[in-house]
Amino acid sequence: MNTVKAYGNQSATAPLGALNIERRALNADDVSIEILYCGVCHSDIHTARSEWGPARYPVVPGHEIIGKVTAVGDAVSRFKTGDVVGVGCMVDSCQHCDACAEDLEQYCENGFTGTYGSIDKHLGGHTFGGYSEAIVVKEKFVLHIPENLDIAKAAPLLCAGITTWSPLKHWNVKAGDKVGIIGLGGLGHMGIKFAHAMGAKVVMITTSAAKGNDARLLGADEVLISTDQSQMELHKNSFDFLLNTIPVGHDVDPYLNLLKRDKTMVMVGAIEPLANLNSGILVRKRRNIAGSLIGGIRETQEMLDFCGVHNVLPEVEMIDMQSINAAWDRVVKADIKYRFVIDMESLKK
Amino acid sequence: MNTVKAYGNQSATAPLGALNIERRALNADDVSIEILYCGVCHSDIHTARSEWGPARYPVVPGHEIIGKVTAVGDAVSRFKTGDVVGVGCMVDSCQHCDACAEDLEQYCENGFTGTYGSIDKHLGGHTFGGYSEAIVVKEKFVLHIPENLDIAKAAPLLCAGITTWSPLKHWNVKAGDKVGIIGLGGLGHMGIKFAHAMGAKVVMITTSAAKGNDARLLGADEVLISTDQSQMELHKNSFDFLLNTIPVGHDVDPYLNLLKRDKTMVMVGAIEPLANLNSGILVRKRRNIAGSLIGGIRETQEMLDFCGVHNVLPEVEMIDMQSINAAWDRVVKADIKYRFVIDMESLKK
Repeated sequence: MNTVKAYGNQSATAPLGALNIERRALNADDVSIEILYCGVCHSDIHTARSEWGPARYPVVPGHEIIGKVTAVGDAVSRFKTGDVVGVGCMVDSCQHCDACAEDLEQYCENGFTGTYGSIDKHLGGHTFGGYSEAIVVKEKFVLHIPENLDIAKAAPLLCAGITTWSPLKHWNVKAGDKVGIIGLGGLGHMGIKFAHAMGAKVVMITTSAAKGNDARLLGADEVLISTDQSQMELHKNSFDFLLNTIPVGHDVDPYLNLLKRDKTMVMVGAIEPLANLNSGILVRKRRNIAGSLIGGIRETQEMLDFCGVHNVLPEVEMIDMQSINAAWDRVVKADIKYRFVIDMESLKK
Repeated sequence: MNTVKAYGNQSATAPLGALNIERRALNADDVSIEILYCGVCHSDIHTARSEWGPARYPVVPGHEIIGKVTAVGDAVSRFKTGDVVGVGCMVDSCQHCDACAEDLEQYCENGFTGTYGSIDKHLGGHTFGGYSEAIVVKEKFVLHIPENLDIAKAAPLLCAGITTWSPLKHWNVKAGDKVGIIGLGGLGHMGIKFAHAMGAKVVMITTSAAKGNDARLLGADEVLISTDQSQMELHKNSFDFLLNTIPVGHDVDPYLNLLKRDKTMVMVGAIEPLANLNSGILVRKRRNIAGSLIGGIRETQEMLDFCGVHNVLPEVEMIDMQSINAAWDRVVKADIKYRFVIDMESLKK
């Protein structure tokens, strides 16, 4: 067991500050990682503030981790000291249920082990995330980062990236499809980049003309202002796929009307009651609404490899660990284009 | 043009009574049909009472029609005088859009012509349905009734039947699947019969133990009382498919929790706002919710042929045309097992 520096909070109302946490000694199938960068996800805030049910304190958030391997267990074959690696939202799962057998650990029927806030099978207590200088992770849950990617920017691929990649792939988005990305934040901006790189015709759907302009710079071919009835009417029945990244409950009917017959809108932002859904809109064109949760380890590696080939990277703003509380306030106000990444070198100060 | 006897109403509040309507002279591709039986669908009531927006009066309802061919146009090849035939919810569509090209006339992008209450392309005015002694229908929209079926009972297959058959087939329900039928009325009872005949393990999901017992007689293997939390918990994550026939908006969350990962609940009853839907339930297991509208002409014929082979028929209560107003009151109170059929011989009285 090793004591490492971290940042976390002790209660729902406490700010984040420096603390020490324990990391387990290396097991045969473990990889020890020095954390170089960690992305800031809105989930970090929801969890640390007990907004998704009571948290286990202290909370050390962070599940968008980029680091360097410092040691590997005897049974580890895929990684060696010095490799640049990633860790996302999961660090373990049961490995024997149907979901795990299909490489869909995010749907593990016995519950995956989250990178932070889950029961720690090794040390007891609960898991601590990436707002820390080091982490020990089972090889199966460690990802290769392609050498050509700028590793200072890559961290958000591990959550915002895979959360948008997985539904685009699962619902078979392909070149020429008309794809709508609803909402422009950490998730939405990755949705635009991926759909564009897949060759789709990408439409940014937003309430804000300013965000529309930003979206064009990210790869959107067109902008649809969702509050403009006449624009919405023009695009009715025309979309092959909709990725809905709006992070709160809202009236989904205006968006569902945009879908062609038999097509699907996938929810990845809101995980709460929707303000409205008229099932008549589903009935009249056999439309679907579905949800999708992050992505499996295998498809996360596929996404990272795709990013390497197509040089897809998030837009990030680098911060020091010490500015995390101010950064969180800006995340809550959606005042970030589009993801904060913590430079963990700052933790050594 | 021919004047025929019918039953209809003149305003949202007027009861149905005898009246005369016009039927067009036979075109080359038309089939003239003497109506023998007509099913009573809740849609008839919603339409005639302007509950689905202002109706065109007089309304002559009825889109579950069984009749005998009395004449055919020169270009008609599939029917001859004396054939027993069916007509369902549609009597025409554009025949050139993508949906029509895929034999999915119910999703015609230019709007199908409903059997009643749609614009009549031939006579002007609007179409009149099956509560009448005769109808003239384009050959393409006329269906063969298998000879072995009891034609006095077959009428509800043309709406209640195809509305439940189509989603069961489209979502590929197969032998051994665990299928839940939610709600036991005109639609639900056909859902049980079809899913059972397809070899699925059928679970009736209802608030009422009495309905559960009825469902077993119709072919349900098991009954799940949806208000019993412990029963619902036992069946969580276990269904391959759910067919939701509840005719009004309701909280769908308890039902969605019953689905396995990646599986679908299809709405065929409610065509209005749902009381609640928490998208987190979709997200956590990549579940889907979809809608489905009646069915295409080709699949309606396939369903009728299946009913012939497996002797699947609705449970009906025969009435005379003159008791229609009392029957409607009973439909509204759900006091019918499970479909009224009007014996059109009574219209001659």
